[in-house]
Amino acid sequence: MRKILVIGSGKSTSYLIKYLLDKSETENLHITVGDLNIDNAKKLIGTHKNATAITLDVFNEASRIEAVKSADIVVSMLPARFHIEVAKDCIAFGKNMVTASYVSEEMQALDEAAKEKGLVFMNEIGVDPGIDHMSAMQVIDRIRDRGGKMILFESFTGGLVAPESDDNLWNYKFTWNPRNVVVAGQGGAAKFLQENTYKYIPYNRLFRRTEFLEVENFGRFEAYANRDSLKYQSVYGLESIKTLYRGTIRRVGFSRAWNMFVILGMTDDSYTIDDSENMSYRDFVNSFLPYSPTDSVELKFRHQLKIDQDDIMWDKLVELDIFNSDKMVELKKATPAQILQKILMDSWTLEENDKDMIVMYHKFGYELDGKKHQIDATMVTLGEDQTYTAMAKTVGLPVAIATLSILNGNIKTPGVQIPITKEVYNPILKELEDYGISFIEKKMPYLGYNPLNV
Amino acid sequence: MRKILVIGSGKSTSYLIKYLLDKSETENLHITVGDLNIDNAKKLIGTHKNATAITLDVFNEASRIEAVKSADIVVSMLPARFHIEVAKDCIAFGKNMVTASYVSEEMQALDEAAKEKGLVFMNEIGVDPGIDHMSAMQVIDRIRDRGGKMILFESFTGGLVAPESDDNLWNYKFTWNPRNVVVAGQGGAAKFLQENTYKYIPYNRLFRRTEFLEVENFGRFEAYANRDSLKYQSVYGLESIKTLYRGTIRRVGFSRAWNMFVILGMTDDSYTIDDSENMSYRDFVNSFLPYSPTDSVELKFRHQLKIDQDDIMWDKLVELDIFNSDKMVELKKATPAQILQKILMDSWTLEENDKDMIVMYHKFGYELDGKKHQIDATMVTLGEDQTYTAMAKTVGLPVAIATLSILNGNIKTPGVQIPITKEVYNPILKELEDYGISFIEKKMPYLGYNPLNV
Repeated sequence: MRKILVIGSGKSTSYLIKYLLDKSETENLHITVGDLNIDNAKKLIGTHKNATAITLDVFNEASRIEAVKSADIVVSMLPARFHIEVAKDCIAFGKNMVTASYVSEEMQALDEAAKEKGLVFMNEIGVDPGIDHMSAMQVIDRIRDRGGKMILFESFTGGLVAPESDDNLWNYKFTWNPRNVVVAGQGGAAKFLQENTYKYIPYNRLFRRTEFLEVENFGRFEAYANRDSLKYQSVYGLESIKTLYRGTIRRVGFSRAWNMFVILGMTDDSYTIDDSENMSYRDFVNSFLPYSPTDSVELKFRHQLKIDQDDIMWDKLVELDIFNSDKMVELKKATPAQILQKILMDSWTLEENDKDMIVMYHKFGYELDGKKHQIDATMVTLGEDQTYTAMAKTVGLPVAIATLSILNGNIKTPGVQIPITKEVYNPILKELEDYGISFIEKKMPYLGYNPLNV
Repeated sequence: MRKILVIGSGKSTSYLIKYLLDKSETENLHITVGDLNIDNAKKLIGTHKNATAITLDVFNEASRIEAVKSADIVVSMLPARFHIEVAKDCIAFGKNMVTASYVSEEMQALDEAAKEKGLVFMNEIGVDPGIDHMSAMQVIDRIRDRGGKMILFESFTGGLVAPESDDNLWNYKFTWNPRNVVVAGQGGAAKFLQENTYKYIPYNRLFRRTEFLEVENFGRFEAYANRDSLKYQSVYGLESIKTLYRGTIRRVGFSRAWNMFVILGMTDDSYTIDDSENMSYRDFVNSFLPYSPTDSVELKFRHQLKIDQDDIMWDKLVELDIFNSDKMVELKKATPAQILQKILMDSWTLEENDKDMIVMYHKFGYELDGKKHQIDATMVTLGEDQTYTAMAKTVGLPVAIATLSILNGNIKTPGVQIPITKEVYNPILKELEDYGISFIEKKMPYLGYNPLNV
């Protein structure tokens, strides 16, 4: 039996483990799932004979080394900051490794050692990063192979609620880490390229500078800019591209309403609110509004943000019940962002039967034979339930497929890497189609940002 | 002769040195002015027989020690970060010391050593901090001595252009470090107390939440909140105060217009703009606006900020010439804040005959004999020219007076301190009146933030 060690059994591992278990007979696999708390690991493997759940603390060196040593390949599904110790063990004991996380500097530093030992360290092979890299590079390489020259690349991803569970005014529920949603966009201006011009958007304008996207059968979406669009320039070899933009997808209207929180300072995570524990939701809102002995929190809010009484934004606020003076924050020494997160979780937590949805949208603009062309590629994946979510599917399946491909010697180029080579993305994207994860491509008139060619 | 060493001969030292020279005969003083570049020192002392200019590099230990050793008292007018080595020498050689800077942690750490040696280390004795401390504590102590209980303290200071030199639409010119003006308010939410409620203003709202102030003979001003209002609670003993607010004074309309730069991200100092060197002012503005092949930078700007064509804000922008495509930024790897500073300096630099103005406004609310009262105290100081500025006067004279008082043993309580005790502020404020720096007090009906007592 070939032994696969999966470290972590959190939200994103359901499909990953299911895939490996389903292949365990034909592929002769034994899967060990290690976690600090093995309840979820046990639940996910059930009574499968080719799997074992073990208690594993990655900070306990002895047990970590023992687990790594006895595996043929290691998959780390821990939060990104916990990979490095496992990775060093993999170098020491000659094991291949797979993660869905961004390559950290420490991870990158292991590249030479991995190459020396002939080890594949595959990273960024979830959904975003992951499927985005693979699906983008497949089209980009195809365009180049035909002699085309890339002039525009825009890429958008969003984790959303599926249409059938989309039942609030924000058209949004937390399908992943709520904290990341609340602080999204903070930490510096978003930077991107439009028609050879660098553009910068500060946080306070980020949610007012959205773009619209139309996905067949799923309707209209919007996207706000990610901070890091330009780092893909060198990764994808797009040094001479004119337009480069990456964004996060929401349903239309989310960003305009979210901007209210940004402008009032309710998403700030850099300081704690005094006596937050004993505040009501209403007190919290009021702390961002001027004092008035006579005017209501509601009117002050409307006045500060100039919200008409018949504006849908107002109904969105009311739906969140943020003006309630009986609901208490209860969090000690909490930042505005932590308090807002709590308020949102009252309304945006998935119910038992709710399903999630992953939407990805790429635009590829290129020149070929003296003409400009555009291909739009879209992918929508729906979750099945709250264990087998679209997020777990799109993160876990590429990880699982890559793991087996490495184990089988189909992916063999050594080193710390991400899935941007044909050797990696072609077989994985092909197999993902069997699981319903596929892109619909459409030829579009090239519009870019200069449709009239002025 | 008693020897005074003044380190630094920058903008704020003209009145300081003049005061000491004027007193040198009657008080038997010799003043040594040390600076890395002695041109300005020479200019300020002229041919006065009781003064010497020396070249002094505070990072040259030997010459620094020699200068400190031969003085009876040391005044450091260097930027705050350079005080500490001088301060340590003063401890080592038993010299009193005076600075106009905020007490740093390193400075505070010398408190015990200063007390052991019986040395007075007087800090924060310029204008803000300085005159604000002294004038506020004098009124607060008086209220308390009469049995009153402080319920409100608001304090505002601004460095502005004098009315006779106030000839642009912003009613503003740089009378001090331009950089501090451009980045003012950044680094976290402003926090203050209004009627026992903590209030927080994020940077993107700071310049839209101003208060108005009326100063007799000088008209109307506005003030935006400082970040640090609450730190004065313990310093001034205002723990049970209901309203505590500190702010920066501008002419009415400045903040609303300045907010345009804030919202577009043009005051950001956290990243550099690509190829800033070769940008025109217009390119710089355009980098914060969406790409459009057909629309002008002007219309995009107006549309993004919803500025009507007849709004005075627009004229303020035009006056700055920021849409000029011929004026080049010329700064390499510059942050938005650095570029904006350069653009503003074209328009806001004081001309040869321009005069500056310092405005200070305190509001004291208190309860006495079961009734609520309010005292407003205002101070306006005008500059004489570009050497003898209001800024130099209000910073330098308190420093000079304190220095002589310490030398004469009139201020003798040892330790690292700020001017908040009667021993210090009473004689200094009294003498400042002789130089035209005085407060006008007015009894006001107590309004607080709850005039109707709802």
